[in-house]
Amino acid sequence: MNANITLSKRAQALTSSAIREILKVTERPEVISFAGGLPSPATFPVERMREATDKVLRDAPQAALQYGPTEGFTPLREWVAQRMAKLGAPVSPGRVLIVTGSQQGLDLLGKTLVDEGSKVLVETPSYLGALQSFSLFQPKFASMPSDGQGIDTDALTPELLAGARFMYCLPNFQNPTGRRLPLERRKALVEKAAAAGVPLVEDDPYGELSYDGEHLPGLLSLNPEQGIYMGSFSKVLAPGLRLGYVVAPEPLFSKLVQAKQAADLHTPSFSQRIVHETIKDGFLDTHIPSIRDLYGRQCHYMLDALERHFPTEAQWTRPEGGMFIWVTLPKGVDTTRLLAKAIEQNVAFVPGAPFFANDPQANTLRLSFVTVPAEKIEAGMQKLGALVKAEIAGLAQAA
Amino acid sequence: MNANITLSKRAQALTSSAIREILKVTERPEVISFAGGLPSPATFPVERMREATDKVLRDAPQAALQYGPTEGFTPLREWVAQRMAKLGAPVSPGRVLIVTGSQQGLDLLGKTLVDEGSKVLVETPSYLGALQSFSLFQPKFASMPSDGQGIDTDALTPELLAGARFMYCLPNFQNPTGRRLPLERRKALVEKAAAAGVPLVEDDPYGELSYDGEHLPGLLSLNPEQGIYMGSFSKVLAPGLRLGYVVAPEPLFSKLVQAKQAADLHTPSFSQRIVHETIKDGFLDTHIPSIRDLYGRQCHYMLDALERHFPTEAQWTRPEGGMFIWVTLPKGVDTTRLLAKAIEQNVAFVPGAPFFANDPQANTLRLSFVTVPAEKIEAGMQKLGALVKAEIAGLAQAA
Repeated sequence: MNANITLSKRAQALTSSAIREILKVTERPEVISFAGGLPSPATFPVERMREATDKVLRDAPQAALQYGPTEGFTPLREWVAQRMAKLGAPVSPGRVLIVTGSQQGLDLLGKTLVDEGSKVLVETPSYLGALQSFSLFQPKFASMPSDGQGIDTDALTPELLAGARFMYCLPNFQNPTGRRLPLERRKALVEKAAAAGVPLVEDDPYGELSYDGEHLPGLLSLNPEQGIYMGSFSKVLAPGLRLGYVVAPEPLFSKLVQAKQAADLHTPSFSQRIVHETIKDGFLDTHIPSIRDLYGRQCHYMLDALERHFPTEAQWTRPEGGMFIWVTLPKGVDTTRLLAKAIEQNVAFVPGAPFFANDPQANTLRLSFVTVPAEKIEAGMQKLGALVKAEIAGLAQAA
Repeated sequence: MNANITLSKRAQALTSSAIREILKVTERPEVISFAGGLPSPATFPVERMREATDKVLRDAPQAALQYGPTEGFTPLREWVAQRMAKLGAPVSPGRVLIVTGSQQGLDLLGKTLVDEGSKVLVETPSYLGALQSFSLFQPKFASMPSDGQGIDTDALTPELLAGARFMYCLPNFQNPTGRRLPLERRKALVEKAAAAGVPLVEDDPYGELSYDGEHLPGLLSLNPEQGIYMGSFSKVLAPGLRLGYVVAPEPLFSKLVQAKQAADLHTPSFSQRIVHETIKDGFLDTHIPSIRDLYGRQCHYMLDALERHFPTEAQWTRPEGGMFIWVTLPKGVDTTRLLAKAIEQNVAFVPGAPFFANDPQANTLRLSFVTVPAEKIEAGMQKLGALVKAEIAGLAQAA
């Protein structure tokens, strides 16, 4: 017997993700991988979470294992609201939706805000997972000109912004570049978006992982009534729980809740209660600094290794937080081809092209520094630097 | 500052769910609620899950808290494949996708199979959560004629089936009716769907909760190569974990995986490992019979109470498994209006109309019997029966 499966147009347009294929390669233990987007498991507070789990299963086992409200576990929503207030963006708990990882927030925003052909403004480059998630709803991406500091707000003309369903921004230590948007640009961005009537979506998984420079106010704190904000416990606690949150104004908030109900009814009660139990007494205030210290050290190892091993023709970002460095090689170098050669030598990174919604720059690549030991960073960058030099020499010969 | 939020067409079409509003009312402790779709928390194996959680956090804490593959935790996928084989439907673990509750499976099927206006075949009535989930992708539902035994396969004409993207069926103890499709109809259904080239989606959260009658082969076991199957741990273990699975053939399987990656990257590693640890040594073989016993007893309490308190003009299903009884009142009785009166007397149920994709039957209602103690079933049915009698008397007077 046979069924004729007819895929939807959006499913036909789906292609297997570069990240997925790369992650498969990097599972081989001999590979030094700068390709991952994984936080360091050394930062997972296992003992604390074991205690929290124990307490949840002792004090409220039936509620923790039962269906729960779509909006999320009330004490956790209240915790998020308080945290946001501390960060300068006071919001009501009633505007906080707990989601199954902030990736789900992206899916829900795409569902509720994007029709086929809708204009969506994104950075150049932007987070690949967001581009993939929004793509399912068939938008037309408009790329905002960006430089090493983020969106070039001077280049945001009324024509570019006009009619966009939303603007998707990662102001803090963006994946993939690690860049942080300066304060003046934040203000300009919020003003220009408001003037054009374009909702601002601020995706902020790395905001608290700042190891250099000073804290900058988030877009939501510059625009508390109308901003849309996405946060995550993946980078400050553990990603295997899939727990994040979205803050949104009405009428969007109610639609997000309804879309979430259709998507998975609610985020697992069990993990919401465990996370709340873990963090409710201020645990993150002592825990996050230890992550910052580790990631700051790791970042400097890699920046030092880049200086030593990469040729002067290469440029890279110098992040003050987060997990990633972005490298731009001379025009003509194709990092997808470079990756094939790197993997032969058991080194991996992510080619930059998929992070561009339009006009991919094939000469860019993303490096993650958080999970690789210092000596492997050194060994891996040495190999990669030599490959880059050989590529550039090849270009010069061909010219 | 102001943002002009323009909702997508699909979000504009979203309305707040009847179930959601009803669940709010039933939170009041004085309400005897037959409205819930919740399994009985008395069946949650808390002690066993505490041990499993402990073991997971002792043996593999970092893997349990880290990102994982989109397809799911391999040992759990293998467990599902073995379980399916036991139930007569051998499938490869490579065709099993672990999802964040089977509700997510519905969302992913909608995403990958439904374009605006696509024909989707559903039962009359069908599961409300599925109708809502598919609706986001703007299908055109075609209702299959159904009776107290389920889909009337004689009424499935080639015209009705032609061009449908899929047929959505709940053959075992369907939500909302509790009915089970007889074997001959299962065979006819699979044959007719195959002849028309229509993929069959079998949603089976209640299949193992059979307390009367004999086990019937599932649609997948009648059509192992091409069938699409959805299973859940919500009703046999605990729903608060949000854990289910989808079995699908290629090329659909790969598209489901890609859509899931965009939706939430993967199902929480933590809960997948806990559930696998809980069930891997045959736990469900002793646990499920205890749920069957409880639900069977509860079902009979309610059937007895219906006999005693409901008027002869009312009809109801006599389930051999699952959690629900479906009541059909004389034409002219509007159960939404009845619900308002019932809630004044602190009794709740779910009006039947929202379960119909087309031509809602306002004289129907759904009763859940699993969480209400016997004496409250008696008291609640007495009140509800009196209200029903009064409604019918009112109809007769008006006529």
